[in-house]
Amino acid sequence: MSDNINVGIIGTGRLGYHHASNVLRSKGANLAAVSDAAKESLDRATKNFDVKGYSSYKDLITAPEVEALVIATPTQTHYEILKEAIKSGKPIFCEKPITYTLEEAEKIVEAVKKTNAYLQVGFMRRFDPGHTAAKDMIVDGKCGKPIYIHDCQRDPNGPPKEYVPQSGGLFVDMGIHDLDVARWLMGSEIVEVYAQGAVLKHEYLKELHDVDDGQILLKFESGALGMIEISRNANDVYDTRTEIIGLTKSVFVGQNQLTPYTVIGGQQIIVDMANWCLGRFKDAYELEMQAFINAVQEGRPSPVTAYDGMVGLKLALAATHSYRTSSAVKLTY
Amino acid sequence: MSDNINVGIIGTGRLGYHHASNVLRSKGANLAAVSDAAKESLDRATKNFDVKGYSSYKDLITAPEVEALVIATPTQTHYEILKEAIKSGKPIFCEKPITYTLEEAEKIVEAVKKTNAYLQVGFMRRFDPGHTAAKDMIVDGKCGKPIYIHDCQRDPNGPPKEYVPQSGGLFVDMGIHDLDVARWLMGSEIVEVYAQGAVLKHEYLKELHDVDDGQILLKFESGALGMIEISRNANDVYDTRTEIIGLTKSVFVGQNQLTPYTVIGGQQIIVDMANWCLGRFKDAYELEMQAFINAVQEGRPSPVTAYDGMVGLKLALAATHSYRTSSAVKLTY
Amino acid sequence: MSDNINVGIIGTGRLGYHHASNVLRSKGANLAAVSDAAKESLDRATKNFDVKGYSSYKDLITAPEVEALVIATPTQTHYEILKEAIKSGKPIFCEKPITYTLEEAEKIVEAVKKTNAYLQVGFMRRFDPGHTAAKDMIVDGKCGKPIYIHDCQRDPNGPPKEYVPQSGGLFVDMGIHDLDVARWLMGSEIVEVYAQGAVLKHEYLKELHDVDDGQILLKFESGALGMIEISRNANDVYDTRTEIIGLTKSVFVGQNQLTPYTVIGGQQIIVDMANWCLGRFKDAYELEMQAFINAVQEGRPSPVTAYDGMVGLKLALAATHSYRTSSAVKLTY
Amino acid sequence: MSDNINVGIIGTGRLGYHHASNVLRSKGANLAAVSDAAKESLDRATKNFDVKGYSSYKDLITAPEVEALVIATPTQTHYEILKEAIKSGKPIFCEKPITYTLEEAEKIVEAVKKTNAYLQVGFMRRFDPGHTAAKDMIVDGKCGKPIYIHDCQRDPNGPPKEYVPQSGGLFVDMGIHDLDVARWLMGSEIVEVYAQGAVLKHEYLKELHDVDDGQILLKFESGALGMIEISRNANDVYDTRTEIIGLTKSVFVGQNQLTPYTVIGGQQIIVDMANWCLGRFKDAYELEMQAFINAVQEGRPSPVTAYDGMVGLKLALAATHSYRTSSAVKLTY
Repeated sequence: MSDNINVGIIGTGRLGYHHASNVLRSKGANLAAVSDAAKESLDRATKNFDVKGYSSYKDLITAPEVEALVIATPTQTHYEILKEAIKSGKPIFCEKPITYTLEEAEKIVEAVKKTNAYLQVGFMRRFDPGHTAAKDMIVDGKCGKPIYIHDCQRDPNGPPKEYVPQSGGLFVDMGIHDLDVARWLMGSEIVEVYAQGAVLKHEYLKELHDVDDGQILLKFESGALGMIEISRNANDVYDTRTEIIGLTKSVFVGQNQLTPYTVIGGQQIIVDMANWCLGRFKDAYELEMQAFINAVQEGRPSPVTAYDGMVGLKLALAATHSYRTSSAVKLTY
Repeated sequence: MSDNINVGIIGTGRLGYHHASNVLRSKGANLAAVSDAAKESLDRATKNFDVKGYSSYKDLITAPEVEALVIATPTQTHYEILKEAIKSGKPIFCEKPITYTLEEAEKIVEAVKKTNAYLQVGFMRRFDPGHTAAKDMIVDGKCGKPIYIHDCQRDPNGPPKEYVPQSGGLFVDMGIHDLDVARWLMGSEIVEVYAQGAVLKHEYLKELHDVDDGQILLKFESGALGMIEISRNANDVYDTRTEIIGLTKSVFVGQNQLTPYTVIGGQQIIVDMANWCLGRFKDAYELEMQAFINAVQEGRPSPVTAYDGMVGLKLALAATHSYRTSSAVKLTY
Repeated sequence: MSDNINVGIIGTGRLGYHHASNVLRSKGANLAAVSDAAKESLDRATKNFDVKGYSSYKDLITAPEVEALVIATPTQTHYEILKEAIKSGKPIFCEKPITYTLEEAEKIVEAVKKTNAYLQVGFMRRFDPGHTAAKDMIVDGKCGKPIYIHDCQRDPNGPPKEYVPQSGGLFVDMGIHDLDVARWLMGSEIVEVYAQGAVLKHEYLKELHDVDDGQILLKFESGALGMIEISRNANDVYDTRTEIIGLTKSVFVGQNQLTPYTVIGGQQIIVDMANWCLGRFKDAYELEMQAFINAVQEGRPSPVTAYDGMVGLKLALAATHSYRTSSAVKLTY
Repeated sequence: MSDNINVGIIGTGRLGYHHASNVLRSKGANLAAVSDAAKESLDRATKNFDVKGYSSYKDLITAPEVEALVIATPTQTHYEILKEAIKSGKPIFCEKPITYTLEEAEKIVEAVKKTNAYLQVGFMRRFDPGHTAAKDMIVDGKCGKPIYIHDCQRDPNGPPKEYVPQSGGLFVDMGIHDLDVARWLMGSEIVEVYAQGAVLKHEYLKELHDVDDGQILLKFESGALGMIEISRNANDVYDTRTEIIGLTKSVFVGQNQLTPYTVIGGQQIIVDMANWCLGRFKDAYELEMQAFINAVQEGRPSPVTAYDGMVGLKLALAATHSYRTSSAVKLTY
């Protein structure tokens, strides 16, 4: 299989491990190496995937056997890693949020432009078959001009305590997906946000200065309105839905039932539901990795650019600011 | 409200009581009187509905204030009551099965023909909005020639012990609805049945010589095939579904959720279901009574004729015979 | 039927006509009279329902044969009619919004208190079996403290041009239902609203100074957050859903399928949906009228008080103000 | 990846190709070689998968680089290939039906027993998450003793003309899956079948002596009843459902929606459905291949034995016979 691309994964935590196993499932790629500063995590990955391991991401980036890079480390490390990765000239897949601050994100956008680098940001929902069917329908004009969007993303439970400080907060950590989906599906930039947030269930978030519930009103450049609902409180179900109303038809992308399995008894129907994002978006994660590999192999541009990653962050930070100041925030591009 | 039809109800048991309350809800009718030989049942009806009561059905049939008759007594009494009712010349609504034996049913069909009487049989499913939508679609040719039907009717639980001997058995009591729906929706007579049955759950039915589960294979004059499933074992849900496959489209008539109400928790979705036929077919019962009143008021023919009632019984008895002899039964018309 | 309450209906437009037919279907009530200043509308009602008609509501209110009043005229007439009705001492059912201005509403609340009048406001969703099941679950503590509510109400199409000026605008006309449902289900008063609105589809609304799309963020006294989405743009479907998230379980009240009828062909499933509020809330309209009659017969207090009507209006006007000024509006009680 | 099992695929048609791509996705296996007598099909597979190709299955079976065998050739070739494969001592995965005749199947069962060979039959539905959830529930006693099963499998369309003669006919080709699922889920052998069949849509099947619609009544050793519906007439949807009724609860395994994507407009909801078995059972095909690889690696017995394959065939042939003779067929074991 000589033409396969040799992929190196930086970061072997939950998502890096998941990406590694998706590389293994992809056509046209080999998993060449992984890196992680944490020995235990690295050992688990090298053993389970039977690949070379590096304790330093720098060594992985420059390793001759590695032809393409996947960055799945905590957000605060992205900026430094991305700079090295761009320098190497190798194609890059980077998890969201692209960086921790807007300034860093803008510098990455510039560097990508200057070097003509390939950089794909991990907005995996853009590859979910439900969302792409909706996007196709909108682009094909089958539902008329999109005039309203309601998107909700409700996590089944609160995050681990130690994860919160590095997460960027609810509006960035979770909301960035919804904000990206909103501008992508509506085909129009968001020019105003107004956000509210609160701790409604998980009291430990208060001392960590985060919230478990947020809601954002949106105004689009096109005149459309929209609304995003984000929470950690969905009572054991991962509940993500997007509803777009067009001038002639509405398109809904729904939750999904985990299996087509139903129990009846006591005058009730019971159905099982996906309970985490890697379950709901299993196909999306596979398809974004396959898209990365295909685009690199065929020399096509990135389907989710550094600019998309920067705008997502800009919106998420604006929502955070709106929540903190209880005032609408206008955005220009 | 002088032009309203004054309706008399014979039999104030579960179904008679239900019909009485539907007469009260109908446009164009008054509830004029009820009759029942059982004093307690009669008293409850006359008191709750504030109407005149007769202990003898003969007195109700001939009462001058009664203009139309609804017969909802146990099946074995239908034949005698129907003869009197036909003699009276008043329009008649009669619950299914029309009579207890095929010979009686044929005599009623003849009497109706001779006297040009109005007689409507209580196959209420023909008025269910789901089933009528399916029928319309078939008649309008929107799904092509109907080639297959699968119908199931599953009662939530076993019947009261004392009801069984007068019920005619599972294939007659419940199956007559499904057999009627099958020939009505397919628009073709059933020319062969093969049936199996067994007591699978409710052991007390064995000594009553009845079964709680039956399944009937059907061949239609048109060449179509079909299948009916009947049981008393649906674990607290009333589950009736009809699936018709046409040459170009399939039409399904489903269960219905009792309310659009859903509970989520513990990675499950819980939904409530109709748990008896008066719940699932609430609208159908109302609409068949309204259809009776309208047809009588406007002098139109009965939408469900005595002949339909007779054929339904013929099929149900043939299925019972097939089950008992383990052999296919052919039918001619 | 001597103990039946004789009901008079003021206003024989769409909703008055619907209420009249529900009175006819209710137990314990007679339809005694109707009134309407518009001759054509009045004639249609008196003819179809075979009841007495008054061209003046004042005559109906004082008519000796009328024992209870239903007010279903345009909102701007409510205040004058309500004053007369309260004076008469007869029990009153009044459509929402209770009055046109908050000042009037407060005067009605006072008058009701002073005279101990029976006044029930037409928030029919409180009687919808889906919503009452949710309310019961919350009250019984089965889903923990309610911490979030998302409610949407999307009309299938824009309103008739001539209806708009008297409607009070989108936030009052439609939103008052959602705002009432929100405070009722959450069991807590709304203390802050922030609203946006726009004409996204029906351009003729611009010159009428109304919008076809509105969204309201809510803060509750209990600390809970919530969100209401209102539109006229649902592409031929009437789509109302309410989702309450509790600390332990979530409760959803959904759309409803019109009939349990499904068509399959061309790799699609097609299902029919309710397309107006009288369809989706058919049961609710019947049940609120029955509740009115029962409460009056049994001397029980009104299940939806004048105060509820006033608070609903207060919230709807606050949302309208927030939308116009692009600023959050705080409310006190 | 030295411990990976090297798998060789015999037959590179639709299913062989699918199995090859699933081997590539599996953990613990390499795709080592493929074989097919048809040059074009073989070339496509060797090129797309970048693996060695053999024109003769005998060469693949004895090839030293091949450690495990997958047989996905037309049924009539299975017997000869299986004999060679068993001789080789290598673990075998064989598609259903195991052989063309019952005599051959019994000889394979004997050979497997004598040589203690590993042979897994391709009843992939046993690995479908919906079906395994149902099986677990039954085995765990959560729905009481299973007393009834209704299973339907409806193909979206008729088969290619050239496929029919080698397919074994509808009751064998499709029905074998349903019959296997029935005995597996009910945990009891089928002791009587009664079948009907007809050409209802695809007239070209008549001259090929096959049918496009079949229905089979079942009696189980446990006393349970059941029913299987098989057709090629589902109007572009692949519709497979299994409903098991237990003494206390019912378990349904449903169709599945292809994506959680819905379009609303014109008072309708439109949803997309799986339209072939490789779509509906995508996960099942992956999981059965993974189960094969895991069992071989860990030296565990086959989850679907040669005996299971033989009994499935026995039942399918009995159903075919019943259909042809219009009489019930009793079976002993």
